[in-house]
Amino acid sequence: MNYQLILDEIAHEVSCLSNKGKVADYIPALANVDPEQFGMSLTLFDGTQYSVGDSNTLFSIQSISKVFTFTLALKFYSTNLYKRIGREPSGDPFNSLVQLEYEHGIPRNPFINAGAINVTDALISYFGNSTKASEEIFQFIRDISDETSVNCSKIVATSEMDHGFRNMALANLMKSFNNLDNDVYDIIQTYFRHCAIEMNTKMLSRAMLYLANHGVDPINGMVHITEQQAKRINAVMLTCGHYDASGDFAFHVGLPGKSGVGGGIAVVVPQKMGICVWSPGLNAQGNSLLGTIALELFATKTGMSIF
Amino acid sequence: MNYQLILDEIAHEVSCLSNKGKVADYIPALANVDPEQFGMSLTLFDGTQYSVGDSNTLFSIQSISKVFTFTLALKFYSTNLYKRIGREPSGDPFNSLVQLEYEHGIPRNPFINAGAINVTDALISYFGNSTKASEEIFQFIRDISDETSVNCSKIVATSEMDHGFRNMALANLMKSFNNLDNDVYDIIQTYFRHCAIEMNTKMLSRAMLYLANHGVDPINGMVHITEQQAKRINAVMLTCGHYDASGDFAFHVGLPGKSGVGGGIAVVVPQKMGICVWSPGLNAQGNSLLGTIALELFATKTGMSIF
Amino acid sequence: MNYQLILDEIAHEVSCLSNKGKVADYIPALANVDPEQFGMSLTLFDGTQYSVGDSNTLFSIQSISKVFTFTLALKFYSTNLYKRIGREPSGDPFNSLVQLEYEHGIPRNPFINAGAINVTDALISYFGNSTKASEEIFQFIRDISDETSVNCSKIVATSEMDHGFRNMALANLMKSFNNLDNDVYDIIQTYFRHCAIEMNTKMLSRAMLYLANHGVDPINGMVHITEQQAKRINAVMLTCGHYDASGDFAFHVGLPGKSGVGGGIAVVVPQKMGICVWSPGLNAQGNSLLGTIALELFATKTGMSIF
Amino acid sequence: MNYQLILDEIAHEVSCLSNKGKVADYIPALANVDPEQFGMSLTLFDGTQYSVGDSNTLFSIQSISKVFTFTLALKFYSTNLYKRIGREPSGDPFNSLVQLEYEHGIPRNPFINAGAINVTDALISYFGNSTKASEEIFQFIRDISDETSVNCSKIVATSEMDHGFRNMALANLMKSFNNLDNDVYDIIQTYFRHCAIEMNTKMLSRAMLYLANHGVDPINGMVHITEQQAKRINAVMLTCGHYDASGDFAFHVGLPGKSGVGGGIAVVVPQKMGICVWSPGLNAQGNSLLGTIALELFATKTGMSIF
Repeated sequence: MNYQLILDEIAHEVSCLSNKGKVADYIPALANVDPEQFGMSLTLFDGTQYSVGDSNTLFSIQSISKVFTFTLALKFYSTNLYKRIGREPSGDPFNSLVQLEYEHGIPRNPFINAGAINVTDALISYFGNSTKASEEIFQFIRDISDETSVNCSKIVATSEMDHGFRNMALANLMKSFNNLDNDVYDIIQTYFRHCAIEMNTKMLSRAMLYLANHGVDPINGMVHITEQQAKRINAVMLTCGHYDASGDFAFHVGLPGKSGVGGGIAVVVPQKMGICVWSPGLNAQGNSLLGTIALELFATKTGMSIF
Repeated sequence: MNYQLILDEIAHEVSCLSNKGKVADYIPALANVDPEQFGMSLTLFDGTQYSVGDSNTLFSIQSISKVFTFTLALKFYSTNLYKRIGREPSGDPFNSLVQLEYEHGIPRNPFINAGAINVTDALISYFGNSTKASEEIFQFIRDISDETSVNCSKIVATSEMDHGFRNMALANLMKSFNNLDNDVYDIIQTYFRHCAIEMNTKMLSRAMLYLANHGVDPINGMVHITEQQAKRINAVMLTCGHYDASGDFAFHVGLPGKSGVGGGIAVVVPQKMGICVWSPGLNAQGNSLLGTIALELFATKTGMSIF
Repeated sequence: MNYQLILDEIAHEVSCLSNKGKVADYIPALANVDPEQFGMSLTLFDGTQYSVGDSNTLFSIQSISKVFTFTLALKFYSTNLYKRIGREPSGDPFNSLVQLEYEHGIPRNPFINAGAINVTDALISYFGNSTKASEEIFQFIRDISDETSVNCSKIVATSEMDHGFRNMALANLMKSFNNLDNDVYDIIQTYFRHCAIEMNTKMLSRAMLYLANHGVDPINGMVHITEQQAKRINAVMLTCGHYDASGDFAFHVGLPGKSGVGGGIAVVVPQKMGICVWSPGLNAQGNSLLGTIALELFATKTGMSIF
Repeated sequence: MNYQLILDEIAHEVSCLSNKGKVADYIPALANVDPEQFGMSLTLFDGTQYSVGDSNTLFSIQSISKVFTFTLALKFYSTNLYKRIGREPSGDPFNSLVQLEYEHGIPRNPFINAGAINVTDALISYFGNSTKASEEIFQFIRDISDETSVNCSKIVATSEMDHGFRNMALANLMKSFNNLDNDVYDIIQTYFRHCAIEMNTKMLSRAMLYLANHGVDPINGMVHITEQQAKRINAVMLTCGHYDASGDFAFHVGLPGKSGVGGGIAVVVPQKMGICVWSPGLNAQGNSLLGTIALELFATKTGMSIF
């Protein structure tokens, strides 16, 4: 299959769309991003990479980081993790407190904000403190992306903290149900730090390879998690990876993926490749508008879908 | 792969489990079923069939029928269907009115009760009346299972009607939002008629083949729906096929499937086969307890999973 | 106090308001009422009556009838009534199913629709059948208003039935929780019959006297209920009489009262009088807009308030 | 009326009840209170006071303080206060986040926790900082109770802070909707300080007099608020003063009152007196069990009720 041609076609087709969506504006650092940008990359198991558009531009990976923290937590806690977090679609917006209250502080899954905050808390407990936890998270992302330069934007992290009242509410609610171990403020700060990591589509498409290859990096052979764990992370991405548009994404794209409010979507094609698309304009559900369309076009053009 | 051996192993392993779950008891006709029963079948594209246990025993397919009515509605209405029904996981129990009220009478997906009732209404409108709609639904199920004898249990249908107040509430609520066309009582009666269809695991594993094969029956070549429609039905089964345990099923089994309160679960292995397992004891979420375990064992033993 | 002067002032003041609210339009029979109408009456314990405006015009009493059915149910069932209905404000709209589902089919209070439907069911059980129950309800209202001509509008009752899907949903939901004894359709028909009763402000202000006078009609001495029961009905009117604007009504008017979607509001001034105001235009909460303002003016001008 | 005799009778009758309820145990300082204690006082407009039982024992007034902060906020903001807080019964538990999220951070009324936290925020804004706000709140309570010694328990306030995650969640949620002006931590600390005020039933029964007398202290003539404001505070106490048992309290007692988790209930008899009862054992709704029964006995014995 001529992947470069397919990516070029997709880039052309989405460039013709007049509605680019609406950039996230809850913090200034994200609001100032140019909504016209679009980049897409895919990385095969032998390391070959195809890209189009703004594939070298760093963007804030935001919730895509939740895939990586979930991976680490599953690795270290195994099924014990599910004493504190579920794995069901929430049916509610990503930052809703309603369900969390009804369900006694147990978040539905690791990809809604409450669940990801809970995962961060579990990692802080595992590593002993938040500094060490942050370092290990960053190191893991550098490992899987094979990119030592990966780092977070201090401006974005600080700005999130200044506007993070909703996440503070979620964390305090879980704490009131005894479902967080560490200091609320410390957890949220650590959480925002990994959300503020900056990568480009090349790096992220490469970083997804271990999930496409049963937990093992197909390029350097590093074993990150078990085959079963990799499959289960993919399952949770499929059912919960796009907030309350997860069903829609499964329906239209048919591949496990995780979106972030920075406009990125990282996708796994099992046994084949990692994909990342980025365009900062969001649709009504908070997922990249052009990104979602690009992935649907990709699925249609290549017939790649898990179904 | 030695499928017969695998099925035999699975049957043996689940037979050792002391907890068989709890038979649905909301109507006498279901409450009197022997909970010790277990049957499992799989049908390959060439028609070869492997079975174990009570695979010739007819059982009430109940919500599995929703896959077939959804198929017909998607075939006749195409994407217009989504003006009246969503395709997102609900995050709520299958018969909840809460979400339906908040979302103005638009059911979340075609597999929760409200959604399936809505699909039945759409088919009545399409076929002109409920008698014709019932006939066409039955005929379609006979076609895909290649079994002319398929019929419904009048006792079960009548008994459901006598206890169907919750479904009457759902239907009246949708009607109050102008999201049902036909007479409420007539819709519910038609709905219960197809829920009361009786099949065995052999028939149902064969009936799922068109979904494993891009909408085309791999044995007789009949084209039922388009490739895209088949993929999308599979996607909705994966995200919504097991009520509020759909995430769990995707997580543990990793295959698109639909369960029914009669204890059946019908599953699709894309490009490979149809599977059906039946055991009437249910777990807390209303899905067959042994059936779910059997399918997880099958996924583990064969490595078959879409992820 | 010169009550006639006060009523005249109020009528003049509300006539100057340009916004008369919006007439209920869910059934044609109510939608065609002229929104400019306004009438107000008060009846003292000695039978003296003061009126202004359209006080002879019959209107649909709708939910005001719930006060009278609640009275009968409390009289016949005493505190046993509270096994099936609560007496707490609902905090939700009058016809919401959400709370009813969360609280297992027990309606919050007798003045939300579910509660009033439940009360009607209790009266049907008490009187043996719906025809007898209807007769007794009508007779009671004729007794307390001292008006043998009181009757219901068959057009309104039939029209309600044709649009009563929400109420059918509420009733079926309660039935599914075994919290209704009789046939759902029969209950709803009986319920709509008493909602469709037609009275004018003179009749209704007189009909409230027994609640202002400890359960005893101050004019003819008929004992309807005990002092304690009368006080408790007043308490429920104060906390629940105006749907989710009950707090607002208590805040601004400070008197027990019950509103109806036909534009009437019936009010009790304990130990002093009965009041009724009518103007068919409704505010956002479904209570008479001019009626609410008129009663607030009355409370301000007379200093009458229970607080 | 022989009030002393009535109080003695009540004390005797409640002393015979074996179930004293369950002391609040979410903080050690409250959990260690002896549940057998019971005190009750009433203060007439001329200053005459009648008491029984442990009427000199100081207890934590907790949510009763919300009446006094609401009074100050209404005095300084008048109806502008209702831009940030409603006055409707919530129908939900006192510390629920569900409704607050659905209603965009506007608390239902000033007596649920979110509402009282919001009132505290308004007072901090009015007085310029939290220290000054605390001082003014304390001074007001000293004025109305005519008791210069009134102060808060630092142990209770600190202990609340250590367990105040739910309130931190509520405050952060309101902050995320821009419905709090000041620093969340500072607001909660101020809030807990006035909740931790300690008084006895004598002081509190005297402190309620201004609400029974149209906003004016009947003993020393101090004008605190307008007649209309006093009536409206009484109305909000009646509809919202006892969390989700407010309807029940109105039903059984029929007087405006406010309860606290420390076991106190302060009540207004309009134009007549202030009452306070205290017994630390709580019922299922979090209101003093013996206190509620004592007030119902008082209402029955004296016929005092606003209805």
